[in-house]
Amino acid sequence: MAYFENVSKIQYEGADSKNPLSFKFYNPEEKIGDRKMKDWLRFSVAYWHTFTYDGTDPFGHGNMIRPWNHLKGMDLAKARVEAAFEFFEKLNVSYFCFHDVDIAPEGDTLRETNKNLDEIVDMIEEYMKTSHVKLLWNTANMFSHPRFVHGAATSCNADVFAYAAAKVKKGLEIAKRLNAENYVFWGGREGYESILNTDVGFELDNLARFFHMAVDYAKEIGFEGQFLIEPKPKEPTKHQYDFDVATGLAFLQKYGLQDYFKFNIEANHATLAGHTFEHELRIARINGKLGSVDANQGDLLLGWDTDEFPTDLYATTLAMYEIVKNGGLGKGGLNFDAKVRRGSFEPEDLFLAHISGMDSFAVGLKVAHKLIEDQVLDKFIEQRYSSYKEGIGRDIVEGKADFHTLENHVLDMKEIKNESGKVEELRSLINQYLLTAFAK
Amino acid sequence: MAYFENVSKIQYEGADSKNPLSFKFYNPEEKIGDRKMKDWLRFSVAYWHTFTYDGTDPFGHGNMIRPWNHLKGMDLAKARVEAAFEFFEKLNVSYFCFHDVDIAPEGDTLRETNKNLDEIVDMIEEYMKTSHVKLLWNTANMFSHPRFVHGAATSCNADVFAYAAAKVKKGLEIAKRLNAENYVFWGGREGYESILNTDVGFELDNLARFFHMAVDYAKEIGFEGQFLIEPKPKEPTKHQYDFDVATGLAFLQKYGLQDYFKFNIEANHATLAGHTFEHELRIARINGKLGSVDANQGDLLLGWDTDEFPTDLYATTLAMYEIVKNGGLGKGGLNFDAKVRRGSFEPEDLFLAHISGMDSFAVGLKVAHKLIEDQVLDKFIEQRYSSYKEGIGRDIVEGKADFHTLENHVLDMKEIKNESGKVEELRSLINQYLLTAFAK
Amino acid sequence: MAYFENVSKIQYEGADSKNPLSFKFYNPEEKIGDRKMKDWLRFSVAYWHTFTYDGTDPFGHGNMIRPWNHLKGMDLAKARVEAAFEFFEKLNVSYFCFHDVDIAPEGDTLRETNKNLDEIVDMIEEYMKTSHVKLLWNTANMFSHPRFVHGAATSCNADVFAYAAAKVKKGLEIAKRLNAENYVFWGGREGYESILNTDVGFELDNLARFFHMAVDYAKEIGFEGQFLIEPKPKEPTKHQYDFDVATGLAFLQKYGLQDYFKFNIEANHATLAGHTFEHELRIARINGKLGSVDANQGDLLLGWDTDEFPTDLYATTLAMYEIVKNGGLGKGGLNFDAKVRRGSFEPEDLFLAHISGMDSFAVGLKVAHKLIEDQVLDKFIEQRYSSYKEGIGRDIVEGKADFHTLENHVLDMKEIKNESGKVEELRSLINQYLLTAFAK
Amino acid sequence: MAYFENVSKIQYEGADSKNPLSFKFYNPEEKIGDRKMKDWLRFSVAYWHTFTYDGTDPFGHGNMIRPWNHLKGMDLAKARVEAAFEFFEKLNVSYFCFHDVDIAPEGDTLRETNKNLDEIVDMIEEYMKTSHVKLLWNTANMFSHPRFVHGAATSCNADVFAYAAAKVKKGLEIAKRLNAENYVFWGGREGYESILNTDVGFELDNLARFFHMAVDYAKEIGFEGQFLIEPKPKEPTKHQYDFDVATGLAFLQKYGLQDYFKFNIEANHATLAGHTFEHELRIARINGKLGSVDANQGDLLLGWDTDEFPTDLYATTLAMYEIVKNGGLGKGGLNFDAKVRRGSFEPEDLFLAHISGMDSFAVGLKVAHKLIEDQVLDKFIEQRYSSYKEGIGRDIVEGKADFHTLENHVLDMKEIKNESGKVEELRSLINQYLLTAFAK
Repeated sequence: MAYFENVSKIQYEGADSKNPLSFKFYNPEEKIGDRKMKDWLRFSVAYWHTFTYDGTDPFGHGNMIRPWNHLKGMDLAKARVEAAFEFFEKLNVSYFCFHDVDIAPEGDTLRETNKNLDEIVDMIEEYMKTSHVKLLWNTANMFSHPRFVHGAATSCNADVFAYAAAKVKKGLEIAKRLNAENYVFWGGREGYESILNTDVGFELDNLARFFHMAVDYAKEIGFEGQFLIEPKPKEPTKHQYDFDVATGLAFLQKYGLQDYFKFNIEANHATLAGHTFEHELRIARINGKLGSVDANQGDLLLGWDTDEFPTDLYATTLAMYEIVKNGGLGKGGLNFDAKVRRGSFEPEDLFLAHISGMDSFAVGLKVAHKLIEDQVLDKFIEQRYSSYKEGIGRDIVEGKADFHTLENHVLDMKEIKNESGKVEELRSLINQYLLTAFAK
Repeated sequence: MAYFENVSKIQYEGADSKNPLSFKFYNPEEKIGDRKMKDWLRFSVAYWHTFTYDGTDPFGHGNMIRPWNHLKGMDLAKARVEAAFEFFEKLNVSYFCFHDVDIAPEGDTLRETNKNLDEIVDMIEEYMKTSHVKLLWNTANMFSHPRFVHGAATSCNADVFAYAAAKVKKGLEIAKRLNAENYVFWGGREGYESILNTDVGFELDNLARFFHMAVDYAKEIGFEGQFLIEPKPKEPTKHQYDFDVATGLAFLQKYGLQDYFKFNIEANHATLAGHTFEHELRIARINGKLGSVDANQGDLLLGWDTDEFPTDLYATTLAMYEIVKNGGLGKGGLNFDAKVRRGSFEPEDLFLAHISGMDSFAVGLKVAHKLIEDQVLDKFIEQRYSSYKEGIGRDIVEGKADFHTLENHVLDMKEIKNESGKVEELRSLINQYLLTAFAK
Repeated sequence: MAYFENVSKIQYEGADSKNPLSFKFYNPEEKIGDRKMKDWLRFSVAYWHTFTYDGTDPFGHGNMIRPWNHLKGMDLAKARVEAAFEFFEKLNVSYFCFHDVDIAPEGDTLRETNKNLDEIVDMIEEYMKTSHVKLLWNTANMFSHPRFVHGAATSCNADVFAYAAAKVKKGLEIAKRLNAENYVFWGGREGYESILNTDVGFELDNLARFFHMAVDYAKEIGFEGQFLIEPKPKEPTKHQYDFDVATGLAFLQKYGLQDYFKFNIEANHATLAGHTFEHELRIARINGKLGSVDANQGDLLLGWDTDEFPTDLYATTLAMYEIVKNGGLGKGGLNFDAKVRRGSFEPEDLFLAHISGMDSFAVGLKVAHKLIEDQVLDKFIEQRYSSYKEGIGRDIVEGKADFHTLENHVLDMKEIKNESGKVEELRSLINQYLLTAFAK
Repeated sequence: MAYFENVSKIQYEGADSKNPLSFKFYNPEEKIGDRKMKDWLRFSVAYWHTFTYDGTDPFGHGNMIRPWNHLKGMDLAKARVEAAFEFFEKLNVSYFCFHDVDIAPEGDTLRETNKNLDEIVDMIEEYMKTSHVKLLWNTANMFSHPRFVHGAATSCNADVFAYAAAKVKKGLEIAKRLNAENYVFWGGREGYESILNTDVGFELDNLARFFHMAVDYAKEIGFEGQFLIEPKPKEPTKHQYDFDVATGLAFLQKYGLQDYFKFNIEANHATLAGHTFEHELRIARINGKLGSVDANQGDLLLGWDTDEFPTDLYATTLAMYEIVKNGGLGKGGLNFDAKVRRGSFEPEDLFLAHISGMDSFAVGLKVAHKLIEDQVLDKFIEQRYSSYKEGIGRDIVEGKADFHTLENHVLDMKEIKNESGKVEELRSLINQYLLTAFAK
């Protein structure tokens, strides 16, 4: 049975193709440097936005036309699995990601919920045997159910902490079974609505306790995937504890967790925190903590998480720049944590939207790789910081300078000569590389 | 004498050129549809950012290296005129713009200031005789001097209103003499710092009185340039009265000024008001009020007017889309109300920055023109609104429907079928057009 | 039967009361100037947030504990009416507001929906006979159902336009029957998601056609309530056409609708548009268009409509300042378009939250009235603009000045003396008035 | 000689005083808990905003009327010292703060600059002998001079690093001489304009090298004041490295600097980073890093650092709540890093503005202290988190729980009961405490 009958397997047809259901720029087998496009990009489909999301927004009801809309409960869950693997295959992606609640309905108790999960996980496991698709990461949804109203690991209610722990326990077991390459923690309600009623210090201590237990349990069961924290500054909470990468780094260091976690960086979360996407990637990279990417984009004139499919080629280029510089994403991938606009409610839009994102990252990869190959920025930067290669600059870097030697160096200096940072020229160069990347 | 000795006339060298001091995409004589690139784009240099700005920012002193830095007073003013015409010539632009205070120093009285202005205007007039460069617009700076601390035409002090009037009077006389195609009103301090001490209604009435006097005086002296209001929502004031195009339209209609004014739309002002650049252009266009453009860009993660040179090709494409749809800018042009970053302090950066902006708008023009030529969006939109071409839709448009007929039409209707808005596909198409525009 | 058994009628107990379920500052019968507190404030309960909202947010399921949660369909609708009138009575408010879909479930056709509505409206009418509570306004929800995905009056689909018209027709009939004092238009999806697929000019023309039909129908049936447009800049759309009051004014003037509409101004919508609440009220007031108020507050560090209960006494004071200066709200009122935080899910919180808002506006009224009575700002402003009472200033205001006389006035003037705007002192005064308002 | 002839010593006159030049709420000797108001508040005047700032803004020239405006160079510097001590005395503050360049003009070489500094520091030292005023902190301005265009300790130019080091060396020597209680590092240009030309990792390493040298030098000369980092997210740079407290904590831990630094937290910097003032204070407090406070306020609808005098009583109350909970500020104080609005250009406004800020923090102290004394929030929070005092909650806190025991606890649990967070009620309580704080 086919859920997407009208859509055939998406093929690379090149930049001049008029067929919307084709890749114009993403050519999976094309070699970029030392590996293939698909191996750099490691695209992943987000189960929730693609198979679970119904189009609801704060002012509107579900409106998505989906071939499984008539089903309910476990039947619905199973139909989604079937549709998902058809979708993965047709779209030619290698990974997918899910929250527990995306794949199976919750029961009256956690025991029942876990039973439902087991049944669906069995089914997924079967599908994976005959598919090349792998699990990039899974996670536990600890923010939608009313019990998590005041948080999960940071709830003021110890029963909720316990419940969250049990959900992550199950999540790690599923991750182990399905060979997930990572396990993600996004603290949707780990934060506060009002500082007036919140013991911030205690809640952060509890969050650390929770993470330590998770680390211990992963060791116990031999799960070797990478743990990832996904920062977001706010929404749904007024303030979310994992505000951005830097905040996460402070937390991990304080609580002795820095060896166990990397970051899953989402473009739209970066901008909500007042950063560019590339900034967050850079901060993670220079700290050895660039784990994986939630590939989407926000609208900088809107103040909420719009989770749009990524089409801004500046963002994809600068993101891929960091990723190529990082030597790739390792166990991580580019997960489309993105949803079709509510007005794009036809099943075909799911393909069109993913194509838009995959093509955009393919362009980003190609442009970024060329910029690095040609050392466009590297040479400029090497020259720019060259004063640290000799003399007083070298002393500074090598730890041989102190306030006395530095003062002596400048006390009677008449003028210091700086050189232009040439931002406008560099931006022109990025445009030039972008516009000529696909010129024949 | 040459102020920019190291820079030769900038030439079009094509997308593959490695010479930073060349145009890669702006080919002035290239025909795009019914006219040449240069006639669509009508580039203008902003005198203040290029010849007057010294690099000062709220936390830093002037740092720009300029060949005229050693001069003062009228000597400085004259050197700047010489440098300006050399710059225009080498950059191959057709227009420039200035505030009164950009070109000549203020005297102890307005009479003295006007005398200084006359001397410099004489000089500019001479230069213009042997140059192809024309004056896109001039304006009066009514925000920098301490006297304008509480506004100009909206000052609480009648003497200041009078002073502002006298400055605009002189400005219109200069505009007439130099054949300015437009005259601009940017109300830098026409707004309020605090609503607690402000009679908003009275101030707006005064602003309208002021504009009516300006209209009258232009008629009196036979100045036929277009009057332009330049909206900005805030900065330096807490609230500026000309917040955005819509606010300007409300004001013009209320005070019977709508026949005399169009808008000068600045990209960075649009985004500070919470709009995209293309939104403001569209609102002006559909109201027949698209006058001219201040071509720059902001940084959406920063909350002030950064006045960067425009390099975002999405913005330039969507801006040129509105402009081409408007049949061009008429008397208006693309004025680079943009300043080099403070770190780009070398004279050469002035050229590099303008090149970045000119190339970016040339790309925007080419991509926008192709999108229109191929009717990419037009066909989609025509189909999308086709229900208004017949039946009940046609009745609505032709004024034949009322609440009774409309209710009858739907009262027993089971379902209304909508079609996907296809935003993701359209964004992909924009990318495809962008990436293939300069493919050979 | 009682839905809120544990809550008795809320009484004024004064500032020292320790009882959370009492008014500390709102004393309905207290005389403030020429009328009672309750007559200045005209508080209204929003049906949707109080009786319909279940706590759902973009990341969480419904969690509100409500005594009617076990019911469905028309039984649920009726229980809500009963609960509502109990709530109005216990809270001692005089008004309420609703959307059509708040009070009755939708049927398979509009005819069925209207039948459901009729049944509930009958019931409400009965309740109103024995209650002092009146209908401040009603409106039609034209944004939640999937049919409105691309807008209602501005939909690209003529059937949707027709459907919207039929809904407003019914809404006006209900308004007439229940003696609503106003009828509100909030264009939740009247805007665009992407300018790429939108004919903005055509959509705005259609919106005007729609409003003219509504005006005509109100005349036809003799509905004499005030029509109100409720501006909001965005959310759920990327751009909403009724961005702010100024944008609304431009629209009304352009389409000849200015005699029929005023504005319903919401605090949180003002701030999303980049304005203060008092700014929007002021702009409406000086244009004779201050109709009614949606009393809530946003969180300026969050970029979405949080619809919090208003507790910021600066905002309530400056809002009431505009309202008292306006001579009150006429047919309008203070409608709490506010929802309890998701963490405040107990029924009692509905009372506590309304009390917080009512007390806050009572404080605002008292402080604002005292500021006006003592002419604190008025005297300062009178002095500040006094130069327009004589001489050249008077000539300007009386239309006797022109650019010639104004230039003569300043041409040889050596210095213009301004006076301090004293913002800091005025802010101190506001604090002083606030802190002493309830001192005995 | 007196610079502020028209202003006498400011006295506490109580809430009913009509004299603008009096304290209404700040009663320095009043006992609040275990110490006097003045000892809790430790007010400090910022030299730069009060004696150096001339009213310049990005669109306007200096306009402040100051009795020393006719002076230049060292004469000006000396007059400012005289005026400063007169001002401190009349305003009755105990502390002041300065940057090196605020107090003395720069020479052609650093040696000359230091000579100028020495002369003024001698003078200040003399004044301090007969005054009760102490130096809260000093710092080095490493952002205004063109040499710092690309940063100071993070400059790409080693000479600039050296120059910055020499300036801090001198700063520490001055701090030692004048018994400064703290030394502040605000990294105005320690950040980047564009990530394209920046080696972020190298620059952060250099910043750490710089701080280690500063720590070493302070030890060498025996300076025992507290080192403080002042976070700010941006402006003048696109991105500043010390984005917020959390980012600072990550940096300090990574580079082994956590024992030597606390934070100087500025209200307006907090909000620019997307945080409330109280959030930043809380994060510092729970990490034992609350050093000192730059007391001002921003305008949340404006995107730049407005540095307004603090008058928002919610902000001052919640700030003082954190400070009282911290047991006071230790060596820190409340430094008014605030400038009069440009429209408040008269000398008297300097007093009025400081009075507005001092009164506002006095109110904040009184309300916060009462809230703590009455355990209003403490009791609520104790109850809210009580599940962690026994059973499974206690096991979690004591490290006795793991994923197995936690899963057992919830696996068959039917429902988890949460309690309302009561945000609306708590906000009402804050208002009630505020409005009754000064009731007699």
